[in-house]
Amino acid sequence: MNGKFISFEGPDGAGKTSVLQAIGQELSVKYGDDLVLTREPGGNKISESIRNIILDSANTEMDARTEALLYAAARRQHLKETVIPALESGKIVISDRYVDSSIAYQGAGRSIGEDEVWQMNQFAIDGLEPDLTVYLDIESEEGLRRIKTYRTDEINRLDVEDLEFHQRVRSSYLKLAKENSDRIKLVDASQPLEKVLIAVKATMLQKYPNLF
Amino acid sequence: MNGKFISFEGPDGAGKTSVLQAIGQELSVKYGDDLVLTREPGGNKISESIRNIILDSANTEMDARTEALLYAAARRQHLKETVIPALESGKIVISDRYVDSSIAYQGAGRSIGEDEVWQMNQFAIDGLEPDLTVYLDIESEEGLRRIKTYRTDEINRLDVEDLEFHQRVRSSYLKLAKENSDRIKLVDASQPLEKVLIAVKATMLQKYPNLF
Repeated sequence: MNGKFISFEGPDGAGKTSVLQAIGQELSVKYGDDLVLTREPGGNKISESIRNIILDSANTEMDARTEALLYAAARRQHLKETVIPALESGKIVISDRYVDSSIAYQGAGRSIGEDEVWQMNQFAIDGLEPDLTVYLDIESEEGLRRIKTYRTDEINRLDVEDLEFHQRVRSSYLKLAKENSDRIKLVDASQPLEKVLIAVKATMLQKYPNLF
Repeated sequence: MNGKFISFEGPDGAGKTSVLQAIGQELSVKYGDDLVLTREPGGNKISESIRNIILDSANTEMDARTEALLYAAARRQHLKETVIPALESGKIVISDRYVDSSIAYQGAGRSIGEDEVWQMNQFAIDGLEPDLTVYLDIESEEGLRRIKTYRTDEINRLDVEDLEFHQRVRSSYLKLAKENSDRIKLVDASQPLEKVLIAVKATMLQKYPNLF
């Protein structure tokens, strides 16, 4: 596979969506159809059905391991239908979240254990890690403050978690970034959006000097 | 947990349903509410939603690993909502299929690899294996012949597999039975139902002398 696989990660409220919109817009002018902007579950029918089960706020009985397995199933199908075909035809794939989200959210946030979630996800990704992961870092208090200020529309089951949950998620991301420093690059997302964008682009250019 | 956890396994057409009906009827007279007859996905809302995705014959794009992860997710939820609570209150749980089905059907049948499927399922079962597994063994040709003769109602995506698929499933079950001879007991299911029932009861009595 000769494409480029880039994932974006970060706790809620890090501004991932805004950053991806801006970066995506700029890159799509240069690359057109050779750029694939995607996010898990990736718009395929099977993964969307899985996502509906996960996010159904009526499913209060859902066990944390069930949730982690469902995320892994949606991830697998997204890989198979979207990511792998695009990489095989040499495209640039930018994914809003990938396997690190499961380590941080299910492994640490839900306290299943990061190693166990990582191990189980190997079955789903079968060795396919991103070439580059941009991690947008934000203090948990600030992230939660942003969510509460800007998001009034999509409060789902995941948003009603408490501060400690979000702190566990962030600590896990920081640990992942440290342990995978070749792949995961940290960007300080507490700055104003323009500065974050400059830092994100610099990070991407370091890996791919002619990307922009 | 001081209950008894018994699973029934076998390829399609082995007569598992008929055997379980007879055994269940007899045991329920003696044990009443202390007997829990269940089958994956186990009637809980979340697992049934997962099962609907797996069995939807429109989902032709489904990757084998996605399918295995979905089965594991449904299994986990079934464990959590049905099996574990019953075992904790000392009940007898008899499950129509459990983790061995995934090893045989996804690992061998779908050629993902038995070890990989076993490993991934550890995340779902978290150490909880049955105390006893009754494996109903049938030649693949005979099993398929029975399916085609008796089942006209529920032909789903899994039934349209070919003979080789069913042969891989059976070989895998035979290997599992050999490697886990303490837990898995083989019963020849090619005999007439009355004889199969006698052999199944003898197998269960060997493990639990006062069960019937």
